[in-house]
Amino acid sequence: MKALWLSLLLSLGCRSEPAGTKYVRSGDGFLMVLREGDDAFAHFRQLALSEKIRGATFEGFGFGHAKFGYFDQQKKAYDELEVRDVELASLRGSIAWQEGAPSLHAHAVATDRSFVARGGHLLGFQVGKGSLELEITLQHVSLERARDEALGANVLVLPR
Amino acid sequence: MKALWLSLLLSLGCRSEPAGTKYVRSGDGFLMVLREGDDAFAHFRQLALSEKIRGATFEGFGFGHAKFGYFDQQKKAYDELEVRDVELASLRGSIAWQEGAPSLHAHAVATDRSFVARGGHLLGFQVGKGSLELEITLQHVSLERARDEALGANVLVLPR
Amino acid sequence: MKALWLSLLLSLGCRSEPAGTKYVRSGDGFLMVLREGDDAFAHFRQLALSEKIRGATFEGFGFGHAKFGYFDQQKKAYDELEVRDVELASLRGSIAWQEGAPSLHAHAVATDRSFVARGGHLLGFQVGKGSLELEITLQHVSLERARDEALGANVLVLPR
Repeated sequence: MKALWLSLLLSLGCRSEPAGTKYVRSGDGFLMVLREGDDAFAHFRQLALSEKIRGATFEGFGFGHAKFGYFDQQKKAYDELEVRDVELASLRGSIAWQEGAPSLHAHAVATDRSFVARGGHLLGFQVGKGSLELEITLQHVSLERARDEALGANVLVLPR
Repeated sequence: MKALWLSLLLSLGCRSEPAGTKYVRSGDGFLMVLREGDDAFAHFRQLALSEKIRGATFEGFGFGHAKFGYFDQQKKAYDELEVRDVELASLRGSIAWQEGAPSLHAHAVATDRSFVARGGHLLGFQVGKGSLELEITLQHVSLERARDEALGANVLVLPR
Repeated sequence: MKALWLSLLLSLGCRSEPAGTKYVRSGDGFLMVLREGDDAFAHFRQLALSEKIRGATFEGFGFGHAKFGYFDQQKKAYDELEVRDVELASLRGSIAWQEGAPSLHAHAVATDRSFVARGGHLLGFQVGKGSLELEITLQHVSLERARDEALGANVLVLPR
């Protein structure tokens, strides 16, 4: 499974080049449509850098391959689940900054051929035979993500 | 099942008349509350026409009867699932135009008496013994939906 | 189960004090980050009162303990499900007023260690070992919630 995901990520290098034509400015944010082979997280990071986003939330729905993680507090690591050819029934996340780089946090629900829903913390999403429609809403505050050592995880920090 | 859904749709003609009183303007869009018997997609289409919407996204939650579809790439047709008396736990979609008519695309998650979640691509939703609370956000670009022949499906097209 | 939830709610009195530092104004609403032990519904109510909100919608995702209810039309009461240590994969709701007090309505989807999704009408949520990221959007109309006797439930009422 891990090898599959890795090869999928590596293949992204060839197939997906974040480009301006994949999104337009609309109202107080952006609309983005990703297509087969696109890596959603790579596009979010690229958007944050290109558009100098201080902070944003995003939502979307689409079709493709998702990787979910459930954080094991004992192991301080994610148990992982990969699902391919799923409808992304809901997606919600935030774009913040951590040590000078864009930091993403997203949760999602995905459904397969049997219509059964699975999901949780989203580790990655690659668009499949369909598209991913996204709405990114700019926030008017600077959002940071910081490590909470007690938690063993990153947490969104609002400006004081 | 198909006959049931058909009779349900036919009965909508009598029970549901999209009316202005079901929504109000709020901020950069609309709030809409649908009630028992209302066909959500019929109301979205009517709203797009009445309010001359160029493009919009919508979100909502409620209670009723949902029809989901999973696109079979071989058959180029939807496998369908109908669920009745479900909580619509999440709903997200977009309103665009195709050949002069409003074109809808929506995904949703529905849960039944056992709390188990199913969902995906939403083909239709009729409000049941409860309501459907909706928030429609106007987009400031003209959204079109176009057929992608290779995919065998419609895809949202952003203006250049 | 009921005793567990009750003790959980009682313990909130000690652990959670809704405070201004948990949210900031952003655009046409607020961003809020809740932490371990926080009662989401208590914070929504407090926000509605402190900020004199006329009406709002909210969305979020996070980690914690959720209580869902499925309304039994015969019993006119909720069947309940409590799930602990779940990823809140999606959350959507509205803030209105009923008899002078804030009135909440929310639906959610939660996933556990097995990634399986359950959810529906959300009766309560307490943040666990993680956080809850929330976006509250102010509506520019006064939202009321009123009891529909035929339904045996409360329904959102839009201003005429």
